[in-house]
Amino acid sequence: MSYFVSGINAVMENLKRGNDIIEILIAKQRKMDRIREILDMAGKKSIPIKFKERSHLDRILPNLPHQGIIAFLKNYRYFHLDELIKIALESKGKGLLLIADHITDTGNLGALIRTAEFFGVQGLILPKDRSAFITDTVHRTSAGGSAYLPVTRVVNLSRTIDQLANNNLWIIGTSEESKTSIYEFDWNRDLVLVMGSEGKGLSRVVRDKCHHMVSIPGFGQLDSLNVSVASGVIFSEIVRQRTFTE
Amino acid sequence: MSYFVSGINAVMENLKRGNDIIEILIAKQRKMDRIREILDMAGKKSIPIKFKERSHLDRILPNLPHQGIIAFLKNYRYFHLDELIKIALESKGKGLLLIADHITDTGNLGALIRTAEFFGVQGLILPKDRSAFITDTVHRTSAGGSAYLPVTRVVNLSRTIDQLANNNLWIIGTSEESKTSIYEFDWNRDLVLVMGSEGKGLSRVVRDKCHHMVSIPGFGQLDSLNVSVASGVIFSEIVRQRTFTE
Repeated sequence: MSYFVSGINAVMENLKRGNDIIEILIAKQRKMDRIREILDMAGKKSIPIKFKERSHLDRILPNLPHQGIIAFLKNYRYFHLDELIKIALESKGKGLLLIADHITDTGNLGALIRTAEFFGVQGLILPKDRSAFITDTVHRTSAGGSAYLPVTRVVNLSRTIDQLANNNLWIIGTSEESKTSIYEFDWNRDLVLVMGSEGKGLSRVVRDKCHHMVSIPGFGQLDSLNVSVASGVIFSEIVRQRTFTE
Repeated sequence: MSYFVSGINAVMENLKRGNDIIEILIAKQRKMDRIREILDMAGKKSIPIKFKERSHLDRILPNLPHQGIIAFLKNYRYFHLDELIKIALESKGKGLLLIADHITDTGNLGALIRTAEFFGVQGLILPKDRSAFITDTVHRTSAGGSAYLPVTRVVNLSRTIDQLANNNLWIIGTSEESKTSIYEFDWNRDLVLVMGSEGKGLSRVVRDKCHHMVSIPGFGQLDSLNVSVASGVIFSEIVRQRTFTE
């Protein structure tokens, strides 16, 4: 599978990381001054650059603002869990990782990644089995967010949670039954949010490992939200408490 | 087009409203005590009741908790704008209506309805042209929320907004450019939230009629959220301010 990223920042980021770029497409019409650095780096690494009509790029990435530049990568590079833990702990009290507990639908995973990236989540942890992973579809449905959000895949979610907890990260799960609302919970701590698949919720073993369970209070007849909406609502409350209260 | 609603509350609600029900399907295995009232009302109105295997209902409504009861309606009944205004004003300072400004994708509309219903939004206003409307697909993607959330369709959105404003409802729009964050804005007032379609945002004429514009602060590289996620985030902040602060 080849994989693409778009936009100046994402292409630059992948060049810097040394990711394996097959080629870079640039819209003929675009101004070159803001991408001078990209052209230089690509030249040094002998990465082919092709100039195409903007409409050609639009067909590759419909509905995505690509800024006239798309890079094709040989493989999507997953991060190591250690890297994610490091990033989270560096933010000193504002660490925020996300575990998607067996979300199998690529559309849901893409929407979740978009939402997480928007709110500045530092990394996403996916189990290797019974879970969607990063594909071109996920990239598209994430509106490009998968090019920015570091993602890791782990064999054993239960053991991973132990490792996260041993690094002083709080493990917070969600459950409709929890009496602690997301508005009452104190989010000012380094933490990992665990979101379950719709319908099934969190698996038993994962739920037992959570330090706290929280719920989103509903005011209508329906008793649950789509996973990306629920996640967005919780991320929003987290950044509100961390940034918009003194 | 026939239209279905599921679950005890939704079926009961539609019976009470006198909506035109073609037939009611009930799972053979379900206990009859909690639906005694439904059986009585259906009997008085001579509405046919069919008993089917639960698996039959599951096939009609996959992934939706139907509680073993589904009603088929002849037509979806839209509300009148006046009814929505009345409901909103009755809640005295906690009025909350939603305008979807030309959302054409049925999946997005369904997700938006689900989110709005969950947070107790009192009604949804759709323009008649260039907008998705209530279909079976919307019912399914709304996870049944369209059976509960009152929806009205209006010919002229601009004139509708004038009417809402004349009824002392605040018209609040969203824009990435607004310097007022959703966390700083005071949501303790009767209001109408206006959400635009993704990509295009609010139309010029609608934007000009908003009393205030607010934005959701982002902390990543992406600069926008899916419309149902953005709406969920704002509804959450509204209910938080109204319910979880003293």
